[in-house]
Amino acid sequence: MAEYVVRPVGRIESSLRNRSDAPNQGDEGAPDCTIALDPEYATAARDIAAGAELLVLTWLDRTDRDVQAVRPRGDPDRPETGVFSTRSPDRPNPIGLHRVTVLAVDGTRLLVRGLEALDGTPVIDLKPPLGAVSER
Amino acid sequence: MAEYVVRPVGRIESSLRNRSDAPNQGDEGAPDCTIALDPEYATAARDIAAGAELLVLTWLDRTDRDVQAVRPRGDPDRPETGVFSTRSPDRPNPIGLHRVTVLAVDGTRLLVRGLEALDGTPVIDLKPPLGAVSER
Repeated sequence: MAEYVVRPVGRIESSLRNRSDAPNQGDEGAPDCTIALDPEYATAARDIAAGAELLVLTWLDRTDRDVQAVRPRGDPDRPETGVFSTRSPDRPNPIGLHRVTVLAVDGTRLLVRGLEALDGTPVIDLKPPLGAVSER
Repeated sequence: MAEYVVRPVGRIESSLRNRSDAPNQGDEGAPDCTIALDPEYATAARDIAAGAELLVLTWLDRTDRDVQAVRPRGDPDRPETGVFSTRSPDRPNPIGLHRVTVLAVDGTRLLVRGLEALDGTPVIDLKPPLGAVSER
């Protein structure tokens, strides 16, 4: 099948430096962090304001794309599970999906809560959360 | 910034052939469709069962990656909005995010409800929905 090229639109700036520092999910204690967007994407980002809820898509660049099954949350007591039924960062296309709250906006820099990615992780897309039709 | 290569893990089989046929969101009347995964990813998909709720990530391959602002839902009465605050398929990295219900599983073919992508659209990842910590 054809392949496609992902071009990062920014990077995460976080105090989390490696996987052993990271909580398993952002709402389990990740420190606030910054999404530093490339100024080239200022127009795409111009309507993001403090208080917004956003979905952030990242490219988890320090993962193993050949893994197809894992024990969820690394728990040896849980059965090995196909990665498409888990949120393992090790997966064929290592795209992270994070729901965050925007705390502050400074140009193309977004301070956010609820994102557990490692420092330097590429950001590839931002979207509004999935919601009811009436909210769109 | 470094670029990354997305390798599709399957394709959508749908009766929707072009953008003018597609509803704006899957829960506005998309026909049921099939996610035909490459058998190479059978292990990653092996725990997906009928009844599961899934997030499906697609690569929207018939879109314009240079668009940074749109009028939401194509409505000329709505102000132009930066694409990171919209679900426009035209965006720098054209990744579609769809919440679906699995109706049936036949090997690596998943019949799903709630997905509005065009026939042939590449599928790049499947994940469980974002939920409460207790559900993980």
